[in-house]
Amino acid sequence: MTPSMHPNFELVRSVLPMLDTVGIALFAASGALAAAKLRQTLVTFTFFAGVTGTGGGTVRDLLIGAPVFWLHDNRPIFVCLAAAILIYATPRHWWRERALDWFDALGLAAYAVFGAWKALAYGIPPLPAFAMGVVTSCVGGIIRDVLAGEPSILLRPEIYVTAAALAAGLFVALSLLGVDPFVAAGVGALAGFILRALAIARGLALPAYRR
Amino acid sequence: MTPSMHPNFELVRSVLPMLDTVGIALFAASGALAAAKLRQTLVTFTFFAGVTGTGGGTVRDLLIGAPVFWLHDNRPIFVCLAAAILIYATPRHWWRERALDWFDALGLAAYAVFGAWKALAYGIPPLPAFAMGVVTSCVGGIIRDVLAGEPSILLRPEIYVTAAALAAGLFVALSLLGVDPFVAAGVGALAGFILRALAIARGLALPAYRR
Amino acid sequence: MTPSMHPNFELVRSVLPMLDTVGIALFAASGALAAAKLRQTLVTFTFFAGVTGTGGGTVRDLLIGAPVFWLHDNRPIFVCLAAAILIYATPRHWWRERALDWFDALGLAAYAVFGAWKALAYGIPPLPAFAMGVVTSCVGGIIRDVLAGEPSILLRPEIYVTAAALAAGLFVALSLLGVDPFVAAGVGALAGFILRALAIARGLALPAYRR
Repeated sequence: MTPSMHPNFELVRSVLPMLDTVGIALFAASGALAAAKLRQTLVTFTFFAGVTGTGGGTVRDLLIGAPVFWLHDNRPIFVCLAAAILIYATPRHWWRERALDWFDALGLAAYAVFGAWKALAYGIPPLPAFAMGVVTSCVGGIIRDVLAGEPSILLRPEIYVTAAALAAGLFVALSLLGVDPFVAAGVGALAGFILRALAIARGLALPAYRR
Repeated sequence: MTPSMHPNFELVRSVLPMLDTVGIALFAASGALAAAKLRQTLVTFTFFAGVTGTGGGTVRDLLIGAPVFWLHDNRPIFVCLAAAILIYATPRHWWRERALDWFDALGLAAYAVFGAWKALAYGIPPLPAFAMGVVTSCVGGIIRDVLAGEPSILLRPEIYVTAAALAAGLFVALSLLGVDPFVAAGVGALAGFILRALAIARGLALPAYRR
Repeated sequence: MTPSMHPNFELVRSVLPMLDTVGIALFAASGALAAAKLRQTLVTFTFFAGVTGTGGGTVRDLLIGAPVFWLHDNRPIFVCLAAAILIYATPRHWWRERALDWFDALGLAAYAVFGAWKALAYGIPPLPAFAMGVVTSCVGGIIRDVLAGEPSILLRPEIYVTAAALAAGLFVALSLLGVDPFVAAGVGALAGFILRALAIARGLALPAYRR
C-alpha cells in the first residue's frame, strides 16, 4: 500500500491540501445553491454542500488507495459548513442565476488538475492519472444533480467533460514534458476553466451525434 | 492501515456486528418494501434489500479503510435475504403505508450511531466521525430511492438528515465527555429516532429557505 | 491486506485481465450506445463508455480490497476509448434497436462470473463472493441508466438480476464441487447469458409481486 512516491511528493503534500480546500469550497457552494433552488433547510444545505464538496476527492482517494482526506482533517468539513451557512444566510440576489455554474466550473478545473496530480504523486501511470482527473472532477456535480433530482450536468449540450479533459490532459502532458508541476497545474486549470467559461457564457458546444 | 485502536475496541468489535445486523435488517426491509411498491419480483426484492441494507455500512467501511463487513461474514447476506422473503411472503396489509418510513427511521438512528462508533474505534477524529455517522446513515435510503426512481428522501420537507445528525452528534459528544459508549449509543439512537418519529407522525420540519 | 490466495491465483491472474477486457468492452459499448440515443458528443460517448465499462470492476476491486484495475494498466482506458469511437464513427443502422441490451447481456454474464472468481481468488467466502458477482455485474448498467436519466434496468419487467445470480451462483457452486474453474466459468457465463437472452428475445419474466 505504500505508494511509489513521485520525487516532489513532499512538496505536493504540503500544497495540495490548500488547493484541495479551494475545490471543496467551490463545489460545496454549488451544492448549497442547488439546495437553495429546492428551498431546503439549513441542514440539507449542509448535507448537499458536504457531499458535493467532498464527493470528487473521496472517489479519487478511494481509487488511488490514499486515506480519504476528510476523515483525517477537520478543515474540509468546516469549509463545507461555512459554504452552506454563507449561501443560506446571504440575500439570494447576491448569487446570480448562473452562480452555481460558475462555482462548478472553477471546482471542475481545480479538481481535474489536482486529481491527476495526486494520482501521479501516488505512482499512477499518466493515462489512468489523466482519466482519474476527468472522472473525479465530474463526480461532485453528478452527485449533486442526482441528489437534487435534476438532469445530470453531463447531458447538457454545452462543453463540460471536455473542459475537465483539457485541464487534466494539459497538466499531465506538461508534467511529462518536464514542466514545473505548479506551472503545469496553473496552465491546465486556467485552460479548462476558460473552455468551460465559453460554454457557459456563449453556449459553446461540441458537435452532437446525429446519425 | 492498522487502525490506531480505541481502548474499548475489542468490546466494540464483539458488540458492533450484532447492532450492525439490526441496522441491516431494518434498511433491508425498507428496500424490500420499495420493491413491493414497484410490484417487482422476489429477486429484485432481494437485490433492493441487499443494496439498501448493506449500502450504508459498505460506504462506512470503505471510507474508514476497514474490511467491508459483508465480504467476510455470511450473516449480512442471510439477513437481507430473510428480510426480502418476509416482505414478499406476508400479506401486504401487514405493512402499513408508512412502514417503509418507520423501518428507515430505525435504521437511520442505528446507523448514525454505529457509523460514528466504528469510525472512532478506527481512530478517526471526532468531527469526521460525526460526519461519517450522518453520511453513511443516509446512504441506504438514498441508494434505495435512486434505484427505485423516487425523489430522494433527502428532499422531503420533514426532518431527516437532522435526526441522523442529532443521533451521531449526541453519541460523539457524550463519548468525548467520558460517558460509557453503550449509554451514549443508546441516548443518541433514541434521540435521533424520536426526532425522526415526530417528523413522520406530525410532519415536524425545519424552516425552509425562502429568500 | 495480503489476500489469502486461492491455489490457482497465479493462473487466474494471468487470464482474468483478458476476460475482464471483454466485459469492459461490452459494457463500454452499451454506455456509448446510451450516449448515442441521447445524441451526445464524442467526449460524452467516451465518458459514458468509460464509466459504464469500468464501473462494475471498480466497485468489485474496492469491495474486495484489490488495487483498482484500471489505475495500474493502460488497456482498460484504451478499450473504452476504442468502443466509444467505434460506436460514434459507424452508421447508426449497424447497431440495432436492442444492441445495447445484447452488449449489456454479454457484459452482465461475463462480470457476474469474473467478479465472483476474483473475489474467491482474494479469499472471500463463497456466499459473499456470489453476492459480489451479482452486485458488481449490475453496477455498470445501473450507473449508465442513472447517468442517462433512464429508469433503471433493474425495474424492467424481464429477468435481469436473476441472470446475473444464475451465472455467479453456478460458477461458485461448480467451483466448490471441484470443477475446473475455467469450465465452471464457461458454464456459468453461458447459462446466465442464455437466461438473459430469453428475457430480451421473448420477454421472459419472473412473477411480479401482486398482493
